[in-house]
Amino acid sequence: MITPVAFRQQIREQQFTSSTAGYCQEFVQANLVIVPKQYAFDFFLYTFRNQKACPVIDVLEPGQVESLLAKASDIRTDIPKYHIYEGGTFEKEVESIEAIWEDDFVSFLIGCSFTFESEMIKTNIPLKHIELQKNVAMYQTNIETVAAGPFSGPLVVSMRPIKKELVQLATSITEKYPQMHGGPVHIGDPAQIGISEIEKPDYGEYVEIADDEVPIFWACGVTPQAAAQNAKLPIMITHAPGHMFITDWTNEELLNKDS
Amino acid sequence: MITPVAFRQQIREQQFTSSTAGYCQEFVQANLVIVPKQYAFDFFLYTFRNQKACPVIDVLEPGQVESLLAKASDIRTDIPKYHIYEGGTFEKEVESIEAIWEDDFVSFLIGCSFTFESEMIKTNIPLKHIELQKNVAMYQTNIETVAAGPFSGPLVVSMRPIKKELVQLATSITEKYPQMHGGPVHIGDPAQIGISEIEKPDYGEYVEIADDEVPIFWACGVTPQAAAQNAKLPIMITHAPGHMFITDWTNEELLNKDS
Repeated sequence: MITPVAFRQQIREQQFTSSTAGYCQEFVQANLVIVPKQYAFDFFLYTFRNQKACPVIDVLEPGQVESLLAKASDIRTDIPKYHIYEGGTFEKEVESIEAIWEDDFVSFLIGCSFTFESEMIKTNIPLKHIELQKNVAMYQTNIETVAAGPFSGPLVVSMRPIKKELVQLATSITEKYPQMHGGPVHIGDPAQIGISEIEKPDYGEYVEIADDEVPIFWACGVTPQAAAQNAKLPIMITHAPGHMFITDWTNEELLNKDS
Repeated sequence: MITPVAFRQQIREQQFTSSTAGYCQEFVQANLVIVPKQYAFDFFLYTFRNQKACPVIDVLEPGQVESLLAKASDIRTDIPKYHIYEGGTFEKEVESIEAIWEDDFVSFLIGCSFTFESEMIKTNIPLKHIELQKNVAMYQTNIETVAAGPFSGPLVVSMRPIKKELVQLATSITEKYPQMHGGPVHIGDPAQIGISEIEKPDYGEYVEIADDEVPIFWACGVTPQAAAQNAKLPIMITHAPGHMFITDWTNEELLNKDS
């Protein structure tokens, strides 16, 4: 099995440029949001006030490129694909951000649901979007996050159809991971959290909910991206959906972290 | 029993200007550190990297004076005594900071050990410094905190002598409160964490350790104050030791908080 350090090397050399879903499953993968220093305090506060959607696991100081969670890593090259936003608008997808790196860029690494998904699979809870090799379905809700400075917006959730008899198990497994979005935000009727058309996700791809399944909704790491887009920062960089930063920390190590 | 809101009113009118130890025991009391906006991101990152010593429970945006944890509160007046530092040096003690308030001041509220102390007392673990009406003894250790920007320094710990047969109980009670410094950093021989003269605390007052007692050391909310002093900020304001900010949140509510 490939180690995180060897895998990051492949990514850095652009030999691997796809989704990281399913790779290095024992290790924590992270969402990335980069903002200029000027906005870093407000964004940090936004994540603090909305920890369930934005569980920060590391912050790199202005201009710093190595994460404390990943030895000899370089945040400018070690993600397969990046998205660049200007004035809140998506501009382009790139495989390295070395050319546009600035000394005042602050990188936030945010926990991601791959961690609890790998735990659910180990416990024999089938996850349809993975079986169908689809991106998980994500929705904007009518639940407002707590604003901070220019950052605000709706809570974004991911949805997974789970067999009725496994709902309790899926809930308790994910509750074990507060740093990875934790337990469900909502179980059942999508309308109750403002989702009118479940077949039309705002991000990702829809997977059907069978009669013996219940839709379960979890806070999603796209929430802080959406807030940063709303804030219309002159520049902001994120990972491309599904193309995550892979750390050296096992899921278990992060779970037991005691700082 | 006086409510937090009524007690804050008395403090605001300077009818109460003493230590808040023992008041509103069911409610969370907090340490205060105020820094100018320019340093707020780095200080926030310092607290994030040293969560055991610096468990942030609320952050007020630049110029904001009301905490989300305390309705109609005013951080400029609702603490009995403040300490003002200039260039890292203690300048004076005041009962209000209205006169020197600036629109770029960012206030950090940090969990305090009063919460777990009230829990220990309820469980019949005697706390000698409280019985003797002394300030708890605090020490600089040889454990370095993780630096962030200009903030760095040693971990500061508080010490409480606990009867041998109650050590396990005191440990497990405090572990229940990760947002209030959590479990002990060290149990037993002070020399192992670099404390050479246990009779001479760096802050607070020494209480004797009897033959049937063991010294237990917990991470202490003075740690971030010491780091901010080291950083020699042009201005920084803290509460005076023991003179805390009282929130509307019960200890139980904070324990079960799920953001």
